[in-house]
Amino acid sequence: MIIDRGMKALRAAGARAYSAAAAGQLRVGIIGAGRIGQVHAETLAFSCPQAKAVRIVDYFEDVAKKTAAKYGIEHAGQDYMEIINDDSIQAVWICSPSSLHKEQIIAAAKKGKAIFCEKPMATSLADVDEVLKVVEGEGVKLMMAFQRRYDPNFARCRKAIDDGVVGDPLIFHLTSRDPAPPPVDYILKSGGLHNDMAIHDFDQARFMMKSECKRITAYGACRINPEIGTKGGDIDTALTVLEFENGAFGTVDNCRQSPQGYDQRVEVFGTKGQVSFGNNYPSIVEIADNSSVRRADLPLNFFMDRYMDAYRNETIEFVNCVLNNTEPKSTGYDGRAAMVLALAAKKSLLEKRPVETAEIKP
Amino acid sequence: MIIDRGMKALRAAGARAYSAAAAGQLRVGIIGAGRIGQVHAETLAFSCPQAKAVRIVDYFEDVAKKTAAKYGIEHAGQDYMEIINDDSIQAVWICSPSSLHKEQIIAAAKKGKAIFCEKPMATSLADVDEVLKVVEGEGVKLMMAFQRRYDPNFARCRKAIDDGVVGDPLIFHLTSRDPAPPPVDYILKSGGLHNDMAIHDFDQARFMMKSECKRITAYGACRINPEIGTKGGDIDTALTVLEFENGAFGTVDNCRQSPQGYDQRVEVFGTKGQVSFGNNYPSIVEIADNSSVRRADLPLNFFMDRYMDAYRNETIEFVNCVLNNTEPKSTGYDGRAAMVLALAAKKSLLEKRPVETAEIKP
Amino acid sequence: MIIDRGMKALRAAGARAYSAAAAGQLRVGIIGAGRIGQVHAETLAFSCPQAKAVRIVDYFEDVAKKTAAKYGIEHAGQDYMEIINDDSIQAVWICSPSSLHKEQIIAAAKKGKAIFCEKPMATSLADVDEVLKVVEGEGVKLMMAFQRRYDPNFARCRKAIDDGVVGDPLIFHLTSRDPAPPPVDYILKSGGLHNDMAIHDFDQARFMMKSECKRITAYGACRINPEIGTKGGDIDTALTVLEFENGAFGTVDNCRQSPQGYDQRVEVFGTKGQVSFGNNYPSIVEIADNSSVRRADLPLNFFMDRYMDAYRNETIEFVNCVLNNTEPKSTGYDGRAAMVLALAAKKSLLEKRPVETAEIKP
Amino acid sequence: MIIDRGMKALRAAGARAYSAAAAGQLRVGIIGAGRIGQVHAETLAFSCPQAKAVRIVDYFEDVAKKTAAKYGIEHAGQDYMEIINDDSIQAVWICSPSSLHKEQIIAAAKKGKAIFCEKPMATSLADVDEVLKVVEGEGVKLMMAFQRRYDPNFARCRKAIDDGVVGDPLIFHLTSRDPAPPPVDYILKSGGLHNDMAIHDFDQARFMMKSECKRITAYGACRINPEIGTKGGDIDTALTVLEFENGAFGTVDNCRQSPQGYDQRVEVFGTKGQVSFGNNYPSIVEIADNSSVRRADLPLNFFMDRYMDAYRNETIEFVNCVLNNTEPKSTGYDGRAAMVLALAAKKSLLEKRPVETAEIKP
Repeated sequence: MIIDRGMKALRAAGARAYSAAAAGQLRVGIIGAGRIGQVHAETLAFSCPQAKAVRIVDYFEDVAKKTAAKYGIEHAGQDYMEIINDDSIQAVWICSPSSLHKEQIIAAAKKGKAIFCEKPMATSLADVDEVLKVVEGEGVKLMMAFQRRYDPNFARCRKAIDDGVVGDPLIFHLTSRDPAPPPVDYILKSGGLHNDMAIHDFDQARFMMKSECKRITAYGACRINPEIGTKGGDIDTALTVLEFENGAFGTVDNCRQSPQGYDQRVEVFGTKGQVSFGNNYPSIVEIADNSSVRRADLPLNFFMDRYMDAYRNETIEFVNCVLNNTEPKSTGYDGRAAMVLALAAKKSLLEKRPVETAEIKP
Repeated sequence: MIIDRGMKALRAAGARAYSAAAAGQLRVGIIGAGRIGQVHAETLAFSCPQAKAVRIVDYFEDVAKKTAAKYGIEHAGQDYMEIINDDSIQAVWICSPSSLHKEQIIAAAKKGKAIFCEKPMATSLADVDEVLKVVEGEGVKLMMAFQRRYDPNFARCRKAIDDGVVGDPLIFHLTSRDPAPPPVDYILKSGGLHNDMAIHDFDQARFMMKSECKRITAYGACRINPEIGTKGGDIDTALTVLEFENGAFGTVDNCRQSPQGYDQRVEVFGTKGQVSFGNNYPSIVEIADNSSVRRADLPLNFFMDRYMDAYRNETIEFVNCVLNNTEPKSTGYDGRAAMVLALAAKKSLLEKRPVETAEIKP
Repeated sequence: MIIDRGMKALRAAGARAYSAAAAGQLRVGIIGAGRIGQVHAETLAFSCPQAKAVRIVDYFEDVAKKTAAKYGIEHAGQDYMEIINDDSIQAVWICSPSSLHKEQIIAAAKKGKAIFCEKPMATSLADVDEVLKVVEGEGVKLMMAFQRRYDPNFARCRKAIDDGVVGDPLIFHLTSRDPAPPPVDYILKSGGLHNDMAIHDFDQARFMMKSECKRITAYGACRINPEIGTKGGDIDTALTVLEFENGAFGTVDNCRQSPQGYDQRVEVFGTKGQVSFGNNYPSIVEIADNSSVRRADLPLNFFMDRYMDAYRNETIEFVNCVLNNTEPKSTGYDGRAAMVLALAAKKSLLEKRPVETAEIKP
Repeated sequence: MIIDRGMKALRAAGARAYSAAAAGQLRVGIIGAGRIGQVHAETLAFSCPQAKAVRIVDYFEDVAKKTAAKYGIEHAGQDYMEIINDDSIQAVWICSPSSLHKEQIIAAAKKGKAIFCEKPMATSLADVDEVLKVVEGEGVKLMMAFQRRYDPNFARCRKAIDDGVVGDPLIFHLTSRDPAPPPVDYILKSGGLHNDMAIHDFDQARFMMKSECKRITAYGACRINPEIGTKGGDIDTALTVLEFENGAFGTVDNCRQSPQGYDQRVEVFGTKGQVSFGNNYPSIVEIADNSSVRRADLPLNFFMDRYMDAYRNETIEFVNCVLNNTEPKSTGYDGRAAMVLALAAKKSLLEKRPVETAEIKP
């Protein structure tokens, strides 16, 4: 089973992209100039001298052109094949709508390009496996953009675990709540809370546990906006229990609304100790007056602010992975595994029972 | 069903004990002079001028005598019936081994005495119901000593919820980990982690949610000391999910070992906000040097230190409840409900499935 | 000079009180049944079984009688000589108005009684020296009730310094601000901010530095209530710089008003590290909603709440000092030294220049 | 006197630079390609699309060339006059050794260029006044790079003060301690602790108080490295008291060594409340094990890390000031005022007395 494979084959295969890039600055193409595409274009332009974005495309060609002008990208266009067919391009950043990821990854892989891809890899597990087969067959590097793995807090937690501070992990709690619920229209296209929101936390659970989840139980309700349930067929408040092969278990706590703002916290408890963090704030200023002793501001409220460093770090990381032929912290297999967990969670919620991850098949 | 009854009947019935006490200082008998009996004796002697312990008994009569001398209690003996038969005594503090609680509560109730009882009320649900029937029939007050309800942090959390700060509760997390595991011999007599340890947190979950738990799912493992499993037939690491009638759900996180020491934390998240607290420390001093920026000490490590104020407050509270004929924050029905949850959790763990609390019958 | 003497003479002399007390429970008389007298009476009654208050006197005899009844004190009266002349009494707690301290200490000392005294020892430095001469001559123990030395936070800071965590102290900052200014009438009788309020912090500075202050510079203004200046002839906002013989210097920061409430903080920085603490709160609960992330409550607002443990600890400490013939953490010499600093600060403020403590003479 | 002038003249005069820049992207020259010059070059290249560095010069021409290559700057050279004489350049960033600032500012001003200058403006007060006269006469904008004014914490504190949260400021405490002392050789050229290190805090004191300091008293000692005193003729540990015209007073606390690392904190207390902040850390992760409950890391240890955002913000701010003809938060007059305070502090230390700022003359 693909999910069980080690990383060795991929690592060996990655040599192909590496050789191509060895000469100097990595030449990059960006597919998609929306919000996240712009973030990566900015990083490539300003914070990553060892790479250079040379082409950017977007369905809205004028957006591609404006972005190209802003970040000094030579070519802008509409068709992603302009990037695929540019043999000077060694790596692509896929920032397009999810429904296009599969064909774009496959096309890039077949041209031997290294691939940085926003989640998900594809919209069904069968498609994911098809993608992974091609990627593996072609021996190209694929990094899934689970940005939290590159955030200073999440990464520091994982380092503490790696350092042995926690010992064997026993129980974890991941909290991930959005400031305010999206419109019901968004919900309808999102694939549901587990696929759209919790999937990041499922990835984090695997990242922190360094083990595979074998069973998942989902608890959920529609408490914030009834229309999310009645029209969207979704939940807005969720608690998911994950049981891991290493014996640890823990929770992912999600809500589409958090009055204090974006709430992103981690706690991992083990036989030797505990590692945890709370929220990031615009400043660490405190105010004390006759009404309260309080933070000067609410937590960073928007994921683009909260994960600004993470977005920058992940692009730099992948550039370095390609140039140095090292493995990214989040691979295609991690993307597949997170999707399996999201599917298992959804199944558990619908069937009101614990679901073995082994039940989830393409 | 008893668990569903309102408190009205009990409140009315309580008038009997009240009349007896109306004259002045409440006269108290203490059954059991062990560790917790001594704590209550000290509170009654030094921090509660409106009550006076006049008799104390213990199986080890010399311990009773020494305690009596220390706290100025007039009579000491071995037989709890000395207290039951002393018509001048209006209220009893039951601090004896669990196996004796049932007969002692019934005996006290039949004499019209108000009863402060360490958990559990009895060792089986059938016995609990028998006890409650007598208590109710006799119209005496019964307070179960769930001390956390009287702790400044837990009580302040609940007050915030009462004040509407949280709005409708959505998700809660209760953490309750002991510093170090007890000997396996203790485990064998404890009734298991759910009954011995988590029961306090189950009570807190009900206290914070102000609702009844309708379904419970237990996750658990033996990770700290294998003998707790092999010899004790118990788990030492547990995660329990509780689903409440008000739509909220949440977790109780327990472990028999916590490297940093006794770990007692609460988080309640709702539609309007969140209320939470961390651990208490011997002081709030911080040290910053070239090795770390740290708390000067580890958290208060022993429940007798951590809950010192709570133990004092609960005894004072019950004295006031009797003297003013008000309802304690933790009644016999709360004791029954917590036991139901502990039984449901154990059943869920054994049967590896969610258990409806309605399945738990005497 | 008395301030320069070691503690050896006093320690030796203390043997006299010790012998008297060796037989068993320490017999105590309390002079003054006001607010602080009641606190000590309560501690002696309920939290200190090794001592017993047997007499209490107050100018308002009925207050003495009520207090005696409340705390089980056998005799109540009006005249402090009833305590002095009771040969069964081994130690006295002086909680009377400052103007009476001198004659009461001297009377007690001449009868060989151990003396616990609220600050100040006397109202002038000459009187203080007269008192100290008698105390020393009679070889009795004298403890000045600088309660902060017995507070868990202050004591833990000092312990860290003793443990070498800080290394050689370099700079310190003591913050001590009252919740709200007292009436101007109180100011008029108080001896001024330095004598009334900062004196506690001057004592703490010496306690933390473990050295003598050689020079003091006072900065001050009347910013909160102009009448404190115009009618009271005092300041309400003060910053005082203390330079110590060990080379460290630091500040005492005082204000008669603090919007968030009673503000009591310490920071000591040295060659190896820093130790510090902030304020104590009624609980450690935090609330996070769409207005702010804040403490559930303001800091403990009243010195009787903030220093409750310290008041209890200091009385227990002195009982133990007498019974075990050990030296209290705050002696008569500490009382004298703090007064010297208050006088130097006042002189510095008036003369607008640094004042050497050696300039302050009886 | 220059320091007493309002900003009106400067604001009006600034129109000259503004007109020049109005057409589009601001064209910038950078004088000095050392550590701080590189930081500004990077910001101009990557984080400030509304400006473009077109020339950079450095005494070491190869360094200028490498930096130019790295950040896409067209021209690199050795002589700063290449920048002065380039009429297409509208603004200069002066990042050269302090001894050259005077002539470079004057040269740039005479060409009508806007000037961003690292502190100090010049090495004597007379020279500063000469510079200011020219700058004013030419009507060019001058911003002094007191980066803390642009740091999120310092700026948020000031905003709280501007918002009225603090009320009238009463007492402030600024802490600014370096991780480790520099070599004595550095000390010898530094102008001393007040000029080299405290000057930033003196500027902050003015920034927070929004008032002028009228009197300063310096306390200091050489406690960390005796050679700083014996060879360097300087102190390494300092406490400075500043008294302001608005009636507030407070302290600047400096040390050349801080075991926990770079220590940068602020507290401003006033009639309505207090605003404060502590240190920034690489992450906010906490670790709790059987040794301690601690921050995962020590504070950000190096000023380039701690003030990374501030350095970026200040360059962006000045670009915007020039383009929008607004006043920077730190002007030449602020640079002069901070120097006056550093001179007053040094004089106070040497003469062991409070020094009126009015005593400090060119």
